[in-house]
Amino acid sequence: MNLSVLKKKILIVVMDGLGDRGCKELDGLTPLQATKTPNLDWFTRNGIAGTCDTVDVGIRPGSDTSHLSILGYDPLEVYTGRGPFEAAGIGLIGKHGDVAFRCNFSTCDNDMNITDRRAGRVDKPDTTELVRSLEGMRIDGIEAIIKEGTEHRAALILRGGGLSPDVTDADSHDNGPIAWSKGRTPEAQFTADVLNKFVKETYKRLKDHPVNERRIAKGLPPANIILPRGAGSFPNIQSFPEKYDMKAACVAGVGMIKGICGVCGLDVIDLPGCCTGGYSSDFVSKAKAAMDTLKEYDFVLMNVKAPDVCGHDGDPKLKCDAIKRLDEMAGYFKNNFREDMVIVFTADHSTPCSLKDHSGDPVPITVYTPGNVRDDAVEFSESGCSHGRIGRIRGKYILPMCMDLADRAEKFGA
Amino acid sequence: MNLSVLKKKILIVVMDGLGDRGCKELDGLTPLQATKTPNLDWFTRNGIAGTCDTVDVGIRPGSDTSHLSILGYDPLEVYTGRGPFEAAGIGLIGKHGDVAFRCNFSTCDNDMNITDRRAGRVDKPDTTELVRSLEGMRIDGIEAIIKEGTEHRAALILRGGGLSPDVTDADSHDNGPIAWSKGRTPEAQFTADVLNKFVKETYKRLKDHPVNERRIAKGLPPANIILPRGAGSFPNIQSFPEKYDMKAACVAGVGMIKGICGVCGLDVIDLPGCCTGGYSSDFVSKAKAAMDTLKEYDFVLMNVKAPDVCGHDGDPKLKCDAIKRLDEMAGYFKNNFREDMVIVFTADHSTPCSLKDHSGDPVPITVYTPGNVRDDAVEFSESGCSHGRIGRIRGKYILPMCMDLADRAEKFGA
Repeated sequence: MNLSVLKKKILIVVMDGLGDRGCKELDGLTPLQATKTPNLDWFTRNGIAGTCDTVDVGIRPGSDTSHLSILGYDPLEVYTGRGPFEAAGIGLIGKHGDVAFRCNFSTCDNDMNITDRRAGRVDKPDTTELVRSLEGMRIDGIEAIIKEGTEHRAALILRGGGLSPDVTDADSHDNGPIAWSKGRTPEAQFTADVLNKFVKETYKRLKDHPVNERRIAKGLPPANIILPRGAGSFPNIQSFPEKYDMKAACVAGVGMIKGICGVCGLDVIDLPGCCTGGYSSDFVSKAKAAMDTLKEYDFVLMNVKAPDVCGHDGDPKLKCDAIKRLDEMAGYFKNNFREDMVIVFTADHSTPCSLKDHSGDPVPITVYTPGNVRDDAVEFSESGCSHGRIGRIRGKYILPMCMDLADRAEKFGA
Repeated sequence: MNLSVLKKKILIVVMDGLGDRGCKELDGLTPLQATKTPNLDWFTRNGIAGTCDTVDVGIRPGSDTSHLSILGYDPLEVYTGRGPFEAAGIGLIGKHGDVAFRCNFSTCDNDMNITDRRAGRVDKPDTTELVRSLEGMRIDGIEAIIKEGTEHRAALILRGGGLSPDVTDADSHDNGPIAWSKGRTPEAQFTADVLNKFVKETYKRLKDHPVNERRIAKGLPPANIILPRGAGSFPNIQSFPEKYDMKAACVAGVGMIKGICGVCGLDVIDLPGCCTGGYSSDFVSKAKAAMDTLKEYDFVLMNVKAPDVCGHDGDPKLKCDAIKRLDEMAGYFKNNFREDMVIVFTADHSTPCSLKDHSGDPVPITVYTPGNVRDDAVEFSESGCSHGRIGRIRGKYILPMCMDLADRAEKFGA
């Protein structure tokens, strides 16, 4: 290769749940087909386009499996469940071998009966203070690391030798006696025992905690026990920066997306308050944050959640409106484009308004970098992108394709 | 998922051997390109379209391997030869572990020399009566199940432990001494021995059978021995209704197609006499039977054999005529469409008139269901469908794609 060719940077813009199906309310068009998107079309006209099955043909992806694909991992090989990503999403990023749990702060009476699974929806700063008293816990050689999330939610990581995710919940999902965890295999019983000891220890440390004394004085249920559920091991994957030799970051508002990126070894960038991860999030500010991040990093994955929210709400008109604003965001990228970057516009999955949930319909993809082959696709939509030369690909190929366009791919052969 | 979203039904219409190559007689067009097909075009215009390699790029599929693909099995993994499907095609549906054979009723003299391999093309009801005397046969612990087919043909299943399909034919394919079966491996010798004992036992039971006494009296060759050939084991596949959680049926006239569907666990529907499985078959009656079947079933595979017959005959004009009638059939589907169904129009393989045999040319595919994404393909043909958003897919992806469009796919991830 010509050594004077500089390696380019890569920005993948994931417009969450963007793909759709024909909507009655839009005369049989999809929201993307029904909305004018001059900036996204500009990238499609000048770049290459195609249709992408993020996981595989006909598979309805979750946000976790689809983002793993987009980051170049095959979820059919590495996916181990949502638990680890949710833990990571609240900042508790584990490593292979760790077992992660989602937890609730709950209320327990003196007979170890659960009387409120959400401890009156206890929230920060109470939970933050309570968690502090649980620091440094070790049980039978296993480290227990806990972090509070929103409201009564928390995450737990068990770390040490001989752990297994094959255990039942220490949570009956109802009031009444505690459902102690059991190993589903003989090898997993050790993990179940550690988990049950952890639950008892949280009660011991929390029941007379000043925070709970204050709560009781106010007539609020004490958050005096922690109940873990949804065991999952951290996937055994090579870290992204190592795998692709790129300094990598994620610009996202939603916990689970941050969690996935965090588990893959990307730095999670703090965003201004206007980037909420919701419908009303400020896309242009987020785009600016992504471009700023790209100054320091080789690779940025940016996630915009709004179209998915509109799909789940079953609201095609709202989705059209979100798409209009996404196109303004694309305009920001067009006006602030770096010549040394490859930009990708795509979605993690379709969330058809008619279905109010994810579907396996493939999503549009457009890739642009100065000097790419210009193909015959001219419109960024489910149908328009299918005229492009990317053809129909699986999500796990997006990254290798970008690596090549960024002049970062290794030659295979001589 | 929105629980009010109903799971749809799926109908796959396989127009056997429909794909073709450019024909001199049609100014270089294929029969599909040369024939007006307003109804198939309607489905293409309103649905999604693409190009399908039923097995894989460049592979010339048989009817068996291609239909396995269309049913969502990868024939490169599960195919074990045509024997089991032919046995199943005459109603002898075995299971994994069974070894199936095609057989002939033959004529044998007192010195065990074959004098007529087809026993004067003996037919029902003689063969039906003869088979009755072979019921309940057990040899060295192995069950031998035999069923008559058309004319002198029959099928045999051996069932029991330790069987292998790796045996030579007990049939020299010529007159003269019987070619006794041999095991191709030491482990297979047991099966060969059982097979040879079976052949001897058929002679013992049939030589003085009243049917044969009558035949000899009439100067006809007696059908006094059965010669098996083409050993094949039943593929180890999960039954279709279990794999896809759908009640499934097949509407087809041709034995082998019924056999493939039967082996996969589909119910084989009895058809009116006008649905012959030949060129002159009444397609609209068959379409009506398919729609009737769909009332009771979640999934129907329908096969129309005529275009394949025209291709094997090398007659492009006849194929154009068959296509015209197939389009009338598509019109029936259009006029009797159920809103709760996904319909697929495709072929199992191409049978170019210039080749008079199957080719590996990919076939057109169109999928329609109310509310799908409308793409830019407008014409149902080898070329026209390639403008659609399905792109170029392998046959084994047809079913996952339909499962998703029918809102029957499981979500992978969270």
